[in-house]
Amino acid sequence: MENRKIIAMWNGHIMPLEQVSVSPLDRGYVFGDGVYEVLRIYNGCPFLLDAHMSRLEQSLEKMSLPPLSGLYADILSVIGHNEIEEGMVYLQVTRGTAPRVHSYSNLALKPNVLIYGKHFPEHPSAQDAKSGIKAISLPDLRWGRCDIKSLNLLGNCMAITLANERGALEALQFRDGFLTEGTSSNVFVVKNEAFLTPPLSNHILPGTRRNYLVEKLRLRNSMVREAPISQQDVNSADEIFITSSIREATAVISLDAKQVGSGRVGPMAKLARDLIMKGIEEQCGVLIG
Amino acid sequence: MENRKIIAMWNGHIMPLEQVSVSPLDRGYVFGDGVYEVLRIYNGCPFLLDAHMSRLEQSLEKMSLPPLSGLYADILSVIGHNEIEEGMVYLQVTRGTAPRVHSYSNLALKPNVLIYGKHFPEHPSAQDAKSGIKAISLPDLRWGRCDIKSLNLLGNCMAITLANERGALEALQFRDGFLTEGTSSNVFVVKNEAFLTPPLSNHILPGTRRNYLVEKLRLRNSMVREAPISQQDVNSADEIFITSSIREATAVISLDAKQVGSGRVGPMAKLARDLIMKGIEEQCGVLIG
Repeated sequence: MENRKIIAMWNGHIMPLEQVSVSPLDRGYVFGDGVYEVLRIYNGCPFLLDAHMSRLEQSLEKMSLPPLSGLYADILSVIGHNEIEEGMVYLQVTRGTAPRVHSYSNLALKPNVLIYGKHFPEHPSAQDAKSGIKAISLPDLRWGRCDIKSLNLLGNCMAITLANERGALEALQFRDGFLTEGTSSNVFVVKNEAFLTPPLSNHILPGTRRNYLVEKLRLRNSMVREAPISQQDVNSADEIFITSSIREATAVISLDAKQVGSGRVGPMAKLARDLIMKGIEEQCGVLIG
Repeated sequence: MENRKIIAMWNGHIMPLEQVSVSPLDRGYVFGDGVYEVLRIYNGCPFLLDAHMSRLEQSLEKMSLPPLSGLYADILSVIGHNEIEEGMVYLQVTRGTAPRVHSYSNLALKPNVLIYGKHFPEHPSAQDAKSGIKAISLPDLRWGRCDIKSLNLLGNCMAITLANERGALEALQFRDGFLTEGTSSNVFVVKNEAFLTPPLSNHILPGTRRNYLVEKLRLRNSMVREAPISQQDVNSADEIFITSSIREATAVISLDAKQVGSGRVGPMAKLARDLIMKGIEEQCGVLIG
């Protein structure tokens, strides 16, 4: 099962991923001129599919890329071809292939659409969620349009690499002294039983799990504030946790080698994860294991 | 001549560019995890080759990519295969191909190296240099490591697209109110016969033509200051010009639809271009046409 071939859909055609042939003039390859989504699949079912597709639509629009149709069916087809129960689907759209010129003014290209899926032999974040993870804080060096889920990901790659080299699994990024997000996650800080998270802006990605959790917390009358969070607020937090499609909600128990709160997975991080897992069961059925 | 096939060198192999097949798991395609150079060729000779190769080396090092050897010979081979007299060579190095994980900690991949060249049927910037070009000013939305010539170029693409849509050929970018650079050029401002250009930092690319020109101007005792330049300084400039491998030195005669200085190509922009063209003749021989 673990070594089965990954099946992709490349511009509408089903084929092994390893047979997909990208042109070196694909604007995704030379400019990072494209957008993407990562969908988490549970029991063969993509969780929060609507939220992902609506964000993709917004990313496309913000980059003056044309809207796409039929993606729901394509994603389900990729899930089927890869026989994914527990796993993920990666979906990427680039502006298309053309001689290299920066400007895309008046450039009407056929976008290149790649979708592939992967079966996970085990839940990739369950263990980390149980134990909590270590993180470091770093200045946010990324560009001013992190609200677009684009392929310009070098800043994220450099930050998570630095974190890994320091024995941590995530980097919390700060712009002008205020928390933005992780390298592939949103961040929540708990203080006096209130959930704080940075407000949506051009500096953070509107995370599907972030938005889902904010909604669910408000429905049960938990205190949630979307407001700027200073480095000092973070350093004095009772709890910190991150949310993402892959990590659901996972506690940060150590920041910059200093214990966060009790140094263990706290009750609010556990509540956040429970709410997300409950949502998954509602949409995708009871999870095994 | 204009429609001849572009010949590429792909990981050391010579082949038509259209036959190069990039993996969808190339980190250049999913993260923009790579660097590049554009070399301008005159009389079959790459101008400032040493400066380009030394900058490439720095870009590689800043991204923890391994150094490459033999590139000089590869570039000359690509020039030969494409029979380039007047033209360009594009050289790109990505971290390599691997299952998609942001972190490159402990990831020792074989880089993917693409080199191709293009013959120019005519000098691509001579006419613009004669007439001068229009530009607009825009906030610099790019990331904090623009000193690396990386493939994360969306910010540049969006800015030049906006410029084109407003009838301009370049966008001068400002970060926190201070000039950084164009979307594919460095910027010089002339005030009271002094040449001003932003100092090298993590916010601008160390342009080969910029650096060459600063050196040549200083050698002839022109006044050159590498210092922060405010939007106000730019708006009250006697002259503005941009430098790049493709545009050499080209005057900006209109900024945000307002005339710059006399509204014509000024004497200092002309001097700058003459110095660069003289350097080209010294390295590559007398230019025809």
